[in-house]
Amino acid sequence: MGEPAAAQHPHPYVPRDLSLPGYVPGLLSHSTIFGVFVGAALLVTSLIWLLSGGSPRRSRVDRLLMCWWAFTGLSHMILEGYFVFSPEFYKNSSGFYLAEVWKEYSRGDSRYAARDPCIVSIIGLTAIFEGPACILAVYAIATKKPYSYILQFANCLGHIYITAVYFITAVLEGDNFAASPFYYYVSYLVPNSFWILIPAIISVNCWKKICAAVQFQAQNQKKAKIR
Amino acid sequence: MGEPAAAQHPHPYVPRDLSLPGYVPGLLSHSTIFGVFVGAALLVTSLIWLLSGGSPRRSRVDRLLMCWWAFTGLSHMILEGYFVFSPEFYKNSSGFYLAEVWKEYSRGDSRYAARDPCIVSIIGLTAIFEGPACILAVYAIATKKPYSYILQFANCLGHIYITAVYFITAVLEGDNFAASPFYYYVSYLVPNSFWILIPAIISVNCWKKICAAVQFQAQNQKKAKIR
Repeated sequence: MGEPAAAQHPHPYVPRDLSLPGYVPGLLSHSTIFGVFVGAALLVTSLIWLLSGGSPRRSRVDRLLMCWWAFTGLSHMILEGYFVFSPEFYKNSSGFYLAEVWKEYSRGDSRYAARDPCIVSIIGLTAIFEGPACILAVYAIATKKPYSYILQFANCLGHIYITAVYFITAVLEGDNFAASPFYYYVSYLVPNSFWILIPAIISVNCWKKICAAVQFQAQNQKKAKIR
Repeated sequence: MGEPAAAQHPHPYVPRDLSLPGYVPGLLSHSTIFGVFVGAALLVTSLIWLLSGGSPRRSRVDRLLMCWWAFTGLSHMILEGYFVFSPEFYKNSSGFYLAEVWKEYSRGDSRYAARDPCIVSIIGLTAIFEGPACILAVYAIATKKPYSYILQFANCLGHIYITAVYFITAVLEGDNFAASPFYYYVSYLVPNSFWILIPAIISVNCWKKICAAVQFQAQNQKKAKIR
């Protein structure tokens, strides 16, 4: 007698008792998935770097920031957008890249495959609100909008809050969602830490710029009153 | 034969199959708990309103904001601070007010008594970071610090993010955590909505003030260069 269909493909995720009926193993290798991601990220950031170099008044820092916001915004909208609206990605048998990404990523954090409500909630907010807001930040820096700093600050705070909730809930639930220490560090802990580190640096910079502007305005309006 | 001790106090929460061994029923009535909360809130806000009236240059809006930040900051630090560090509040048999608050509030959202990791995570961030940051906002407004607007904006965004995650996870988990429609609306939905509504209004105001300051600085620095 044959085993039931669902048992034919045991999933590779931890905890082992996670039930994922209909799971289809990934077709692409870790290096292929990672290679396509890095290639796409380099393509986007190179394009933004080259296109943003036209104006001599645009600083290198602003051009780097445009690269970051374009990269992170597109990641949220494409990768995380697919995840939010594809609850059964682990059943995908076509080798579709975005499904393969999440099958692979779930080795580092199985809460994605398990569709943990807290994960869906924070990734949903990131994909739907944070993604477009990051792309708006690219435009705001490019066109030197007055809301450029406050928008970047808002995006940074969103990243920090959401990554903090992401890490803290994992710890509170036992921090046992990675298939191996390799996946824990290389897929889960280290990459996600960048979404605390980089936003922290950018938000401190925005905070300083905004405080300087508010102080400048207050001092100059005081001077104008004295005259 | 007597029943086991844990069965002597069936809890009043929904879902009914939630296991809370050692639950002790609340000793204070809903109206007592609510009355003390409103009384304390009125005391704090009246004090801040009176004390902030000393400077004729301080606007009524700023004084109202100081009242809001003092009220919400102290709530986070005292009420939510107690919750975060008291995983077994539902076993408290002394009638201690803060334990009674969370026993009563769990009728509107049993995820508190159940110690849902997502709830603990977001309430922990609110109690530990957001609470003191709200009190700092009272000081920043009182002393007209240049960081007043950006700090208030950060606090507002924290409130909006955390309340959004709070509501969305409930919906994703079936939105069935209230003991009755009364508790759902009066204890859970309506009061928490204020932590989206009020921060939304304040953050729009801060956004405008910050954009105006950034634009003022950019224009005046441009004028200075032309001269």
